[in-house]
Amino acid sequence: MHTLHVDLGDRSYPIYIGEQLLGDPQWLRPHIRGQQVCIVTNETIAPLYLERVKAALTDLTVSCVILPDGEAHKTLQVLSSIYDRLLEDRHNRTTTLLALGGGVVGDMTGYAAASYQRGVDFIQIPTTLLSQVDSSVGGKTGVNHPLGKNMIGAFHQPNAVIIDTSVLQSLPARELSAGIAEVIKYGLISDEPFYRWLEEHMERLMACEPEALAYAIERSCQNKANVVAQDEREGGVRAILNLGHTFGHAIENSQGYGNWLHGEAVAAGMVMAVDLSVREGHLPAAEVERLKRLLARAKLPLCPPENMTEDEFLKLMAVDKKVLDGQLRLVLLQSVGQAVVSQDFSLSNLKQTLAAR
Amino acid sequence: MHTLHVDLGDRSYPIYIGEQLLGDPQWLRPHIRGQQVCIVTNETIAPLYLERVKAALTDLTVSCVILPDGEAHKTLQVLSSIYDRLLEDRHNRTTTLLALGGGVVGDMTGYAAASYQRGVDFIQIPTTLLSQVDSSVGGKTGVNHPLGKNMIGAFHQPNAVIIDTSVLQSLPARELSAGIAEVIKYGLISDEPFYRWLEEHMERLMACEPEALAYAIERSCQNKANVVAQDEREGGVRAILNLGHTFGHAIENSQGYGNWLHGEAVAAGMVMAVDLSVREGHLPAAEVERLKRLLARAKLPLCPPENMTEDEFLKLMAVDKKVLDGQLRLVLLQSVGQAVVSQDFSLSNLKQTLAAR
Repeated sequence: MHTLHVDLGDRSYPIYIGEQLLGDPQWLRPHIRGQQVCIVTNETIAPLYLERVKAALTDLTVSCVILPDGEAHKTLQVLSSIYDRLLEDRHNRTTTLLALGGGVVGDMTGYAAASYQRGVDFIQIPTTLLSQVDSSVGGKTGVNHPLGKNMIGAFHQPNAVIIDTSVLQSLPARELSAGIAEVIKYGLISDEPFYRWLEEHMERLMACEPEALAYAIERSCQNKANVVAQDEREGGVRAILNLGHTFGHAIENSQGYGNWLHGEAVAAGMVMAVDLSVREGHLPAAEVERLKRLLARAKLPLCPPENMTEDEFLKLMAVDKKVLDGQLRLVLLQSVGQAVVSQDFSLSNLKQTLAAR
Repeated sequence: MHTLHVDLGDRSYPIYIGEQLLGDPQWLRPHIRGQQVCIVTNETIAPLYLERVKAALTDLTVSCVILPDGEAHKTLQVLSSIYDRLLEDRHNRTTTLLALGGGVVGDMTGYAAASYQRGVDFIQIPTTLLSQVDSSVGGKTGVNHPLGKNMIGAFHQPNAVIIDTSVLQSLPARELSAGIAEVIKYGLISDEPFYRWLEEHMERLMACEPEALAYAIERSCQNKANVVAQDEREGGVRAILNLGHTFGHAIENSQGYGNWLHGEAVAAGMVMAVDLSVREGHLPAAEVERLKRLLARAKLPLCPPENMTEDEFLKLMAVDKKVLDGQLRLVLLQSVGQAVVSQDFSLSNLKQTLAAR
C-alpha cells in the first residue's frame, strides 16, 4: 500500500493506493466524522462491490443510491435523486457521501456533497482506471448540461481517495484503454521520463499486470497532485491537465455523451493538440507519429470521428470553459513533458489540425 | 452614501448603501472584470428597474433572465433556466451575474454563480428590505427542495452589494414588515442598543422615512458583516443569525413556501425562541411580551398558524440544517443582545413553547 498526499492546506487529503483496500475499514473510517453515510454507486458497480463497502460500515447509518450507468446520466435530474435520498433519510451536515464507481459517479457524488446543505464531506472510491488517475483527485465535481460538459459544478475536495487496484482486473478492456489515455497525458504534460517508461511497458499495462498498473497509477496521481497543489481552482497552471480535452469535449458533445468514452475522445484530442503544437513549430513532426504509436498499442483512437466537420469543431470548442472573453485557449506542448496554455496560435494552423485525419 | 466592508480576506467586499445607486455605473463597474453580464431578476422587478440597470452597462454584452416571482419558484428547475440562458448566450468564466430582486432572486443567482462553470462572479442588488439587511450579505446561496428549505446550495460571496434605499418607497407594506423582522433580529442577537433604538423609532420605519431606513439597514448590515467575518461557513457563531429560523422554516414548510413570507415566519419563530429562552430560565418572562409589542407595531405575526400541531413542528424541525447527529440545536437568548446556539434545553420546555399561542 502506498500513500500520496494532495497538499492543499486545511483541505489536504491522502490518496491510498493498493490491493484489496475497498472493503477494509481502516482506510475509510478515519475519514468519516459523523454517524451517517450515503454510498452513491451505479447499477454496474453495485452488484460487484456495494456489499463489501457496506460491510465495512456496520456501526453507521448507511443509505445507498444506485444511479443508472453512463455519461448520458450525468445530469441535474439524476443528481436530484441523490438529494432526494439524503433528505428522505434525513442526512444532516455531518454526513459523509461515498462515491463508489467511475468518473460519472465521482463527479456527481462530489457535486452532491458540495451542494447538499451547502457542503458535506465525501470520499472517493474510484473503480475505473480513468477515475483512479484523473477525476477522483483534485476536487473538480459537476454535471453536464445539454449545451456543454461539466458546465454546472464546484471545486470540492474529498476527505480521502481510496484506490483499490484489484478492481481493475474486472474492468472491460475498452475502459482500461480509456484510462491509459489519461496516464499517457501525464507523461506528455509534465513527466517525460514517465512517457518513456510507458513506451517501454505499455503491454504490461494492457495485460493488467498489478505492479505495472500500481506504478502507473501512483505516478499519474503524483503528477496530478503536484499540479493541483499549485493551482487548486484552475486560475493558471492547472489548465495543462486539459491537454486534448477541448478537442475531446467537442468530440464527446458531437457524438452524444457516452458513445465515445471520455478517454477515447481525449486520446484523439491529444493527437490534435500535439499536431497543432508541431504546426506552431514547438515540436518536431515525429512527435505526432510517436504519440500515435503509443496510443495504438493502447488500442485508442488516433483521430476524431469521420463525420465531424471543421465548422462543427469550431462551434463546439467555442463553448468550452477554456474560452475566456471570446478567445479560444488551448493546451499545447513546448516539448514532451512541458505543456503551456496558449491563445497565441494561428487560426490557419488550427484549421489544418481540424482537417487532418 | 455609506460604505461598509465585509472582511473575509481575499473574498472581502463592499456594501454600498444610499439613494439612487441602482442605475449609477460608478458602483457597478469597478466590480465587473469581463465583457459579459447576465442580469437575473423577476417579473415584478423587471418592469420597475431592469432598464435602469441595463442603461449603466451599455458597453458590455448583457443577457437577462426574468424569473417567476416568489419562494415557490426557488427550485432546481427554475435555476436551470439561468444555466440555459448563460450557455445559450455563451457566457464564459469571466462573466458576472447581477442579482436584481429580493431574497429569492439573490439566493438563486448567487447559487447559479457559484455553480456555473464551477464558479463565476456576482453582484447583489437587493430590492426588498429583507434581502438588503439579510440574504444579500454573507454569501449563503441556494434553492429549496420539496423536503426542506435551502437544502441545496453553496457559500459564494458576492463581489459587491449595492443597496439602493429609494426602491423601498415602492415596496408593498407586507414586505416592508417582513424585512423589519430581520432588523429586529439583529437587536435581539447582538445589539441591545439597536433594539432600544427600534423601540423608539418603529413608526418612522413603518412610514418609510428614508433616514430611519438607511440607519436601520446600515446597522443591520454591520451586525451581519461582523458575524460573517468571524465565521464565514457557519461552523459556529454564525448560527446565531438563525434566531427563530428553525421554527420559522417549519412554518414556511408546513404552510407551503410563499404563503407565509420568510420574515413573517421568522417573527413568529423569534417569539417562540424567546419564549423557550424564558422557560429555560435565561430571560425574564416580560421579554416575550416586550418582543410581541415591538413586532405588533411592525404588523408582524406573533404566533404560528393555528393549524400547526406540536407533532408537525417536531417532525419538520428535525430536517432543519441545524440538526447535527440527530440532536436538535436552537438559537436561544442569554439576554437581549446576546444569543447562543444550544442543544441543552428540555424537551418538555420545547413542547410547551410549541403549544403556547
